[in-house]
Amino acid sequence: MRATPEDVFVTSGFQQALDLVARVVLAPGDIVAVEDPGYPPPTMLFRSLRMRVVGVPVDEEGIVVAAIPAGTTLVYVTPSHQFPLGMSMSLPRRRQLLDWADRTGAVIVEDDYDSEFRYAGRPLEPLQSIDESWRVLYVGSFSKTMLPTLRLGFVVAPPSLFPALRKAKLVTDWYTAKPMQDALAQFIAEGQFARHIRRMRRIYEDRHQLLVSILESRFGDVLEPIPSMAGMHVAATLRPEVELTDREIARRARRAGVDLHMPISSFAVTEPPRRGLVFGYGAIPIEHIPDGLLRLHDCCLNARDDT
Amino acid sequence: MRATPEDVFVTSGFQQALDLVARVVLAPGDIVAVEDPGYPPPTMLFRSLRMRVVGVPVDEEGIVVAAIPAGTTLVYVTPSHQFPLGMSMSLPRRRQLLDWADRTGAVIVEDDYDSEFRYAGRPLEPLQSIDESWRVLYVGSFSKTMLPTLRLGFVVAPPSLFPALRKAKLVTDWYTAKPMQDALAQFIAEGQFARHIRRMRRIYEDRHQLLVSILESRFGDVLEPIPSMAGMHVAATLRPEVELTDREIARRARRAGVDLHMPISSFAVTEPPRRGLVFGYGAIPIEHIPDGLLRLHDCCLNARDDT
Repeated sequence: MRATPEDVFVTSGFQQALDLVARVVLAPGDIVAVEDPGYPPPTMLFRSLRMRVVGVPVDEEGIVVAAIPAGTTLVYVTPSHQFPLGMSMSLPRRRQLLDWADRTGAVIVEDDYDSEFRYAGRPLEPLQSIDESWRVLYVGSFSKTMLPTLRLGFVVAPPSLFPALRKAKLVTDWYTAKPMQDALAQFIAEGQFARHIRRMRRIYEDRHQLLVSILESRFGDVLEPIPSMAGMHVAATLRPEVELTDREIARRARRAGVDLHMPISSFAVTEPPRRGLVFGYGAIPIEHIPDGLLRLHDCCLNARDDT
Repeated sequence: MRATPEDVFVTSGFQQALDLVARVVLAPGDIVAVEDPGYPPPTMLFRSLRMRVVGVPVDEEGIVVAAIPAGTTLVYVTPSHQFPLGMSMSLPRRRQLLDWADRTGAVIVEDDYDSEFRYAGRPLEPLQSIDESWRVLYVGSFSKTMLPTLRLGFVVAPPSLFPALRKAKLVTDWYTAKPMQDALAQFIAEGQFARHIRRMRRIYEDRHQLLVSILESRFGDVLEPIPSMAGMHVAATLRPEVELTDREIARRARRAGVDLHMPISSFAVTEPPRRGLVFGYGAIPIEHIPDGLLRLHDCCLNARDDT
């Protein structure tokens, strides 16, 4: 990251960072581009503010920059760990996105979520740190690293945007609860936050590896995992031979008491939905993973036998 | 108050309650009426959301209902203790405002701030409790009774508005920090909040009475206090004989190290400004009040000698 403390604007979580940026940067009717499939809350926010939201396809390198519509004012991306598919944006794609923003004058909102939990490979630098011209607003939160109930986040923004951000924050909710900010600042200053991240990275990595190894060894007939080296979830696409929709599989699994996945199609924005499953392991004890997955696999087979 | 726990929607302070209500009830270009002079942050919010804000004059009974423009969608009022003038809205005026809202279909936002600190007379019932048809949204906060840094507030709203409020809160910042809500809930449940209010009411009442008695006994030549029985501030209008503006007096006083007042003209919205001073005593130890006021009076006299 390329930021001084003066560049960091504290917010009540990621969602508010995005709301403030939207209030400051956008006007009703503006075109906003999001990854498709993508994280739903930003799309809900932009639509509630009367923006025109366009889903842009993603491939194995990230958002397809050439498919971003002309006239786009802002693009929202998750480069470290695409939500929900899980790959990270390649370096060439990052440069292409920055060039596009430089050329068009658009703003990039970089949601670097899950970058703290990386299990292999060298992390790519955030877009924000290779951006020469402050086209990138970097948003982050402590909801994944600590607790969502803290409602603490931030946006790294250029000095020119601070007066407008301050005014937007003032009319929205004045400021973020001071006792929460003080408690987190102390937790960080004492080194406890860094220790917590190291400890949780090991715990999540164990879950990640077990989950992926079972998907690879036991689900070859129905699922193809998407390579992912970070975060708290893994996605896998349905093989073409599977005749059920991902929503049907999710529904059947839930009836069988398995709840560690969501259908990828539920994250479609404006593109045709893809079929697949997202496995979240942020809150599941590792010993529950094998049994849940075996029951899920049975569901898929039974389902196929039903047809 | 006429409200069950299910009618109370928790927010991050008063300002956010108003922002959520605005998102749910208003569309860009709507006419919003506010008291004039009035509390500035709501006007800032409504303007930032592209509403047309109209200041409506207030007299000794409160907002002049007959002066609310046709086509108004929402009116924001402070019936317990008008900000900044300090009088409370009379019962006939309250009924007139409710009748107007019933007739026009407009929404009334009732900011009942300072109603906890009442020093004389029987409190009038909130608009919300005499409203038969859910035209009133009652907003409150713990910023004055406890601490602004908590950022805890609420809106009492009809069940029909809850789904939209929930969605607005979700896209805005998901929810309000849970540890803060839990701490306050415990503080209330243990009876400490009620004890705190009783203790602070005595402290504020002593300051209120001392301040008013000095204004009445020593400022008769320059100021006319506006009767006020509640809250943490008292307002007084400049007598016609005073030739200075209230801003000039405030500036001179500040130079003399006196900072317990603000000019009333700074709270004008769209009406011609009134001249006067607002004396806030929420944060001033009682023993500092007499000396500050004597120095302020000198400022006024010197000022008049200057002309």
